[in-house]
Amino acid sequence: MKATIFKSVGNLELVYKKIPKAKPGEVVIKTTATTICGTDIHIVHGEHPVEPNRTLGHEHVGIVYEVGEGVEGIDVGDRVMSGSCTPCGTCYYCQKNLPSQCIGPNNDFSNPGGWRLGNTVDGTHAEYFIMPYPKYNITKIPDNLSDEEVLLLTDIGSTGIAAAENADIQIGDTVAVFACGPVGLCAIAGARLKGASKIIAIDGNEKRLDLAKKMGADIVLDYSLINPVEEILKITDGKGADVAIEALGKEETFQNALKVIRRGGCISSVGIYSGHIQIPIEHFAGGMGDHRIITTLCPGGRERMSQLMTLVSQNRIDLTPMITHRFHIDDILEAYQIFENADDNIIKPIITF
Amino acid sequence: MKATIFKSVGNLELVYKKIPKAKPGEVVIKTTATTICGTDIHIVHGEHPVEPNRTLGHEHVGIVYEVGEGVEGIDVGDRVMSGSCTPCGTCYYCQKNLPSQCIGPNNDFSNPGGWRLGNTVDGTHAEYFIMPYPKYNITKIPDNLSDEEVLLLTDIGSTGIAAAENADIQIGDTVAVFACGPVGLCAIAGARLKGASKIIAIDGNEKRLDLAKKMGADIVLDYSLINPVEEILKITDGKGADVAIEALGKEETFQNALKVIRRGGCISSVGIYSGHIQIPIEHFAGGMGDHRIITTLCPGGRERMSQLMTLVSQNRIDLTPMITHRFHIDDILEAYQIFENADDNIIKPIITF
Amino acid sequence: MKATIFKSVGNLELVYKKIPKAKPGEVVIKTTATTICGTDIHIVHGEHPVEPNRTLGHEHVGIVYEVGEGVEGIDVGDRVMSGSCTPCGTCYYCQKNLPSQCIGPNNDFSNPGGWRLGNTVDGTHAEYFIMPYPKYNITKIPDNLSDEEVLLLTDIGSTGIAAAENADIQIGDTVAVFACGPVGLCAIAGARLKGASKIIAIDGNEKRLDLAKKMGADIVLDYSLINPVEEILKITDGKGADVAIEALGKEETFQNALKVIRRGGCISSVGIYSGHIQIPIEHFAGGMGDHRIITTLCPGGRERMSQLMTLVSQNRIDLTPMITHRFHIDDILEAYQIFENADDNIIKPIITF
Amino acid sequence: MKATIFKSVGNLELVYKKIPKAKPGEVVIKTTATTICGTDIHIVHGEHPVEPNRTLGHEHVGIVYEVGEGVEGIDVGDRVMSGSCTPCGTCYYCQKNLPSQCIGPNNDFSNPGGWRLGNTVDGTHAEYFIMPYPKYNITKIPDNLSDEEVLLLTDIGSTGIAAAENADIQIGDTVAVFACGPVGLCAIAGARLKGASKIIAIDGNEKRLDLAKKMGADIVLDYSLINPVEEILKITDGKGADVAIEALGKEETFQNALKVIRRGGCISSVGIYSGHIQIPIEHFAGGMGDHRIITTLCPGGRERMSQLMTLVSQNRIDLTPMITHRFHIDDILEAYQIFENADDNIIKPIITF
Repeated sequence: MKATIFKSVGNLELVYKKIPKAKPGEVVIKTTATTICGTDIHIVHGEHPVEPNRTLGHEHVGIVYEVGEGVEGIDVGDRVMSGSCTPCGTCYYCQKNLPSQCIGPNNDFSNPGGWRLGNTVDGTHAEYFIMPYPKYNITKIPDNLSDEEVLLLTDIGSTGIAAAENADIQIGDTVAVFACGPVGLCAIAGARLKGASKIIAIDGNEKRLDLAKKMGADIVLDYSLINPVEEILKITDGKGADVAIEALGKEETFQNALKVIRRGGCISSVGIYSGHIQIPIEHFAGGMGDHRIITTLCPGGRERMSQLMTLVSQNRIDLTPMITHRFHIDDILEAYQIFENADDNIIKPIITF
Repeated sequence: MKATIFKSVGNLELVYKKIPKAKPGEVVIKTTATTICGTDIHIVHGEHPVEPNRTLGHEHVGIVYEVGEGVEGIDVGDRVMSGSCTPCGTCYYCQKNLPSQCIGPNNDFSNPGGWRLGNTVDGTHAEYFIMPYPKYNITKIPDNLSDEEVLLLTDIGSTGIAAAENADIQIGDTVAVFACGPVGLCAIAGARLKGASKIIAIDGNEKRLDLAKKMGADIVLDYSLINPVEEILKITDGKGADVAIEALGKEETFQNALKVIRRGGCISSVGIYSGHIQIPIEHFAGGMGDHRIITTLCPGGRERMSQLMTLVSQNRIDLTPMITHRFHIDDILEAYQIFENADDNIIKPIITF
Repeated sequence: MKATIFKSVGNLELVYKKIPKAKPGEVVIKTTATTICGTDIHIVHGEHPVEPNRTLGHEHVGIVYEVGEGVEGIDVGDRVMSGSCTPCGTCYYCQKNLPSQCIGPNNDFSNPGGWRLGNTVDGTHAEYFIMPYPKYNITKIPDNLSDEEVLLLTDIGSTGIAAAENADIQIGDTVAVFACGPVGLCAIAGARLKGASKIIAIDGNEKRLDLAKKMGADIVLDYSLINPVEEILKITDGKGADVAIEALGKEETFQNALKVIRRGGCISSVGIYSGHIQIPIEHFAGGMGDHRIITTLCPGGRERMSQLMTLVSQNRIDLTPMITHRFHIDDILEAYQIFENADDNIIKPIITF
Repeated sequence: MKATIFKSVGNLELVYKKIPKAKPGEVVIKTTATTICGTDIHIVHGEHPVEPNRTLGHEHVGIVYEVGEGVEGIDVGDRVMSGSCTPCGTCYYCQKNLPSQCIGPNNDFSNPGGWRLGNTVDGTHAEYFIMPYPKYNITKIPDNLSDEEVLLLTDIGSTGIAAAENADIQIGDTVAVFACGPVGLCAIAGARLKGASKIIAIDGNEKRLDLAKKMGADIVLDYSLINPVEEILKITDGKGADVAIEALGKEETFQNALKVIRRGGCISSVGIYSGHIQIPIEHFAGGMGDHRIITTLCPGGRERMSQLMTLVSQNRIDLTPMITHRFHIDDILEAYQIFENADDNIIKPIITF
């Protein structure tokens, strides 16, 4: 089968591997659609280390291809998807209702984080792959939903919506979303679902700001033309936003998020940071502002995914405008390149098989 | 001035009273619009006792007519509204973040409930009235909003949305709303704002079910044609609804609400009950179902009202389809009669001056 | 091995059964201590139907006796316990953070409730038994804790503490606990752990009220001598309690709970009800009191049990005063009889092997 | 009357001022006890600017001396106290249930923070002072409680307990408290009240660590002898603490707090920071750790204070061991000096009149 592997830092290859066999308790999925995530690019750059020859990719729609002994309720031919984090269901974090931080059934605290596919096991940028903890994660897709309609729920959809959920947005709140990449755009949809009445999206790319409007933003601010902090304070009559969502992972957007929230306001952070972040004390009210800073890793699990799919079935959200590019698996290296360079106003590519 | 008063049980009169004068700390409002509430009908029927000659009415839009000594920040001519409960801002309940249960600044626990207008003081079914605790309650209306757009926020809007808020509806939940009167219709809008993905409205009146769809219901069930409990269990594949909102105040709808919620589900009750309610133990899982029953009285206060008005300004809700009838104050007794009898498919009348 | 079985309504027998064998994924526990619960008595009375010859009992401390193929991290000889509910970890309810309502890995919504031992599978009133979903449930006991110190955490400890947790008791609250049976006594300990400053215990048995004081009650009321509703309103200067815990499952205590809570107060119910419950509308403020009624089924799972055991290790709670009687398995029928009749001021018996 | 005033940076004076007169709506308090806070020292150092001649001090117990026109329910001779923040009860933040961030009845968003006494109006380091918003703030003291028993609730007690409350500590949690100054010691008491089962206190001063044990710490770590981060990870078997409370306001303790919390853990910060804080990205899991950082300003208001006093009445907390020094108002400058230099193992002085 074809598989996209990390060879070494900077080197990605499309190679042939043997189709995996399902051992007892395991399920093999035949991939029908996948996409590329910023995290995959971090791996290629060596910023997130994985073993050489690891098949990348953690998002998918697929068909159950083989079911190992002892797995009930999952059948060959089922059309399925899962979250990008694939929790075990029994560890400390799964029992604590934080399955995204799953440490596996043997409670290995030295190795937290439920992200396994394309990281610690072979992932979805291949024609077939083994799903970790299949009973907890494999989610059947209703017949009325297409691959494109559900694919983006697996990671950016679940993350962006969780950014809004964990911020505890109240009906009628004002929410500023910093950066309109894939996760930020989903956070806009999430803020809308939570009943925010004024959603302000900030980015420097006009196409992304157009998409932000489509996803539910009321006001878009191009930071290359205007100072977003000043503008948000003006829009809110000096009060500030109730919630700011940081969806980029940069010190500047983090600091701007802090600068625009009111006392008692919340930064909901879903960007992946590198380097350091300085908290500017004066905007943090010296720690006396009743501010909250919340971070969220993509929630997974079958029931999370099922619940998110009802939003699509019931026309509450539509993430398909974010699929701007389409490739066959044979051209996945080209897709990686365009995505890495953010060429051609790409938001998310879909890779089919 | 003209004022609509409770004379005795069953007797309502439109009479002339003196325009009230603002003492220090008080504010007189000139009413520009009001409406009639089910509670007003309860008063006429003697089910909720008030003093003879009490002017009824607790909802309004108006203009500040006179400002007493010592009131800053409120000016004659301001166009204003308030919630139907008018909390004091200092009592035990106001300090406990439950202003709807306000017991007044002297903490009189024997007399809870922040509903004063048209109950313990003269109300809004008159050309002028004194606003209790004006600094806490009087809310300026943005110029871009009409009287009709904001009037229904004062009571049914705030209540219906609070029914959804206090039920802790999660994004993607299924919510059943029992009874599509004014409060139920607003609860549908509230459930929509909270991100419910499937909203099921139940009523026996076709016109109200049509309006339920307009307010955001996905599925409407006419209980005169179908068993709503069986139908909801079928729609949810036997799981039941996550939340049921009781918006009528009858034992039957309360029991049906309990019959349709899943384990761990919530009944959010905003109906006003009389008589008794039996909890059917088998549907309550003998107390072992992790069920929750929550009740809510209309939240008031200036900041609540301001926040709700942003929902109208930003096109998140539109309650005007619920205003089905329009009357002049001179015809208010006719309005009462039509509303009491639910004639002519009335939902809410607006009374102008 | 010896096993205590339900033969038919009213008939309990101590018989010999074959020691169970661990199939793949299963674990056999050798029981070292168990106790009798009110639910066991309900079964004997035929109020909760189980299959004939079912071994009763859902509480235990034991030693791992046999580990089936494919179970890692659990070893023969481990000293262990578990909650009385034994969730699967993968079903809808387990993924929704409500494992006590577990419906099993195949999501059978027609059969909710994670209580399996001594109910749908053979239980702990035997020398050996098979633990359902062992990876999720089996909990190692720290060496410094004795069997008696941890046994009561499995059911009444977890339930009583959850009654306090789910009521959302605030630091400084007044909490009334109706009925000082085993669960009520644990709820007192739970209210204490949550920081309640005034805990009022109500019962009609002097010995139980003495024990209530030992568990943390500040005030005890003997309802055979005094009207508890009037007394609680007097103690709280007419305000009422913030929270009332119903730990009996009777209409009268439920209604009294409602009568003593303030507006915005909460009834946290952990009694098992039969028959019907009437909600007295006038004490429910006609549904306008912002009251909450919460029910809770015993939370289980390894991490819950581990967390509760830290409370014992750290001297935060001591449930051993509730073990008033001690029996050998050979005398378990006598223990049942005394417990059923509440003879000899029994609270909880411990059965050893 | 005698009053302790800020003259200029570094200069504090005990001077004579005229006793204030109560205007309508105002209340004058005769101080019977006060204390000195770290914030007072910041003012003296010029780190928090106030007007010259401002009387310092924001904590007190006193007697109502004069009641202005129009104030009901407060009588001359009442023995009273209040929180150090004195909210108005009507502004945006008061209505939003965040009274510590009170911006005054005219909603001046440019000037947040409910701390007024000894900051924007004359404070409590004087024989008499005017209480802002008396109806919201003045709290009668039960006869059975002494001045010393309640004085420290006004600021450090309310803050330290709120640090534990806002961290959402669960029963059985492990909590690390960084720095055992007055606020940290109260946070230990708060963590205990919330049901934490393991409280680890960190400081470099042996006397403060002894006091930490008295306030409820289970384990004390002297950072001058041991690496607290390594030690906490060892104590928690590599898992980390559930909650860390930062009670100093230094970058190092903030970073250590982050280093010791588990995934999903919370930093509850009540220190006052100056300079900058770096968030160490690797311990922040690059923003992927589901961490929360919460800050809290001292909650005030009559009902908060009354609720806290029940904890003292009911022997749930005792803050008097923290009163290590006693002075007469005539010697307040000496008290300032000792407190500023942390001489003589001072924790909190009480100043009497």
